[in-house]
Amino acid sequence: MKLIEQVITQLSRLPGLGRKSASRIAYYLMQADFSSVQYLVKAIIALKKNLKSCSICGNYSEFDPCDICTDQQRDRSIICVVEQPKDVLTIESTNDFNGIYHVLGGVISPINGIGPQDLRIDQLVKRVEIRQIQEIILATNPNLEGDTTAMYLSQILHESDVIISRLALGLPVGGDLEYADKLTLSRAFKGRNSL
Amino acid sequence: MKLIEQVITQLSRLPGLGRKSASRIAYYLMQADFSSVQYLVKAIIALKKNLKSCSICGNYSEFDPCDICTDQQRDRSIICVVEQPKDVLTIESTNDFNGIYHVLGGVISPINGIGPQDLRIDQLVKRVEIRQIQEIILATNPNLEGDTTAMYLSQILHESDVIISRLALGLPVGGDLEYADKLTLSRAFKGRNSL
Repeated sequence: MKLIEQVITQLSRLPGLGRKSASRIAYYLMQADFSSVQYLVKAIIALKKNLKSCSICGNYSEFDPCDICTDQQRDRSIICVVEQPKDVLTIESTNDFNGIYHVLGGVISPINGIGPQDLRIDQLVKRVEIRQIQEIILATNPNLEGDTTAMYLSQILHESDVIISRLALGLPVGGDLEYADKLTLSRAFKGRNSL
Repeated sequence: MKLIEQVITQLSRLPGLGRKSASRIAYYLMQADFSSVQYLVKAIIALKKNLKSCSICGNYSEFDPCDICTDQQRDRSIICVVEQPKDVLTIESTNDFNGIYHVLGGVISPINGIGPQDLRIDQLVKRVEIRQIQEIILATNPNLEGDTTAMYLSQILHESDVIISRLALGLPVGGDLEYADKLTLSRAFKGRNSL
């Protein structure tokens, strides 16, 4: 049983997996044919070995600069600022944004000892100075730390001649008024649009 | 992006993982240090290489016969019959059963073309004939196919001189009458115990 226990313990350390889901995956792996498991394992190792940070935007990439930063089809005058590399994937999946990104690598969080100097803020300011940027969309998370970071960035970038915007807050599409929390509902009222 | 996409696609094939949870794990793996990822990957490969089926009970094990079948502390007169190897782990985690197991490797399911001959039923009959078995607990799942398989096994084993039992059906502990489905409630009534 020791080998199984080892794999289950290792798997249950992954985010979102408890012991039950980890053991389900472990038993699935045991039944799966060796080649498909090897394929998964090789993909993970290749990812770990070849992935680096893009020196421009800070996103994970196989290449430096990354695909998005070198893509001539994209609008280089709009930068979307996000907290983490995974946020880039989330926004890309909507197909709604055709600009470029800037990954901060976190948020300002005094409680965790993370200040502006620990984030990729200097690099952002330099990008705005050097290149012709027209708009910066602050897409940090809509919570206390994300809001604080957005506020800080808008102050710092105020002197430069760019439009600074923040993602809209309001009711989720397909949601129900009944299930909206008070704060969200209050923001939905404040942000109401005339028809 | 291709490497990340590959890993996410591979991960999302695992049971219980959708694309979102798979991408969360992929980004976690990217941030994790190389040695811990390698540790996970090595554990999975070692599991795949070294695990076999116990020739007695059919459970997965590093050894043949397995730890449970060779454990002298266990009561070899009671066999608990389960569908899958993972059911052994589930029952073992309760610490309520000290007998030995027999893994069928599935259930009778005409719709999927699985008949008695596809399961480890002959082996079970032989175990009962050769060894001194006193009780067989049928612990197949409490659904149509599990019940059918249990019924079939009880008919086949009827001639041998063993007690055949089935796990109790009823309300889950800590549950609420309100949330119990009709069938479970009806079984709970039928199986009521006098106090």
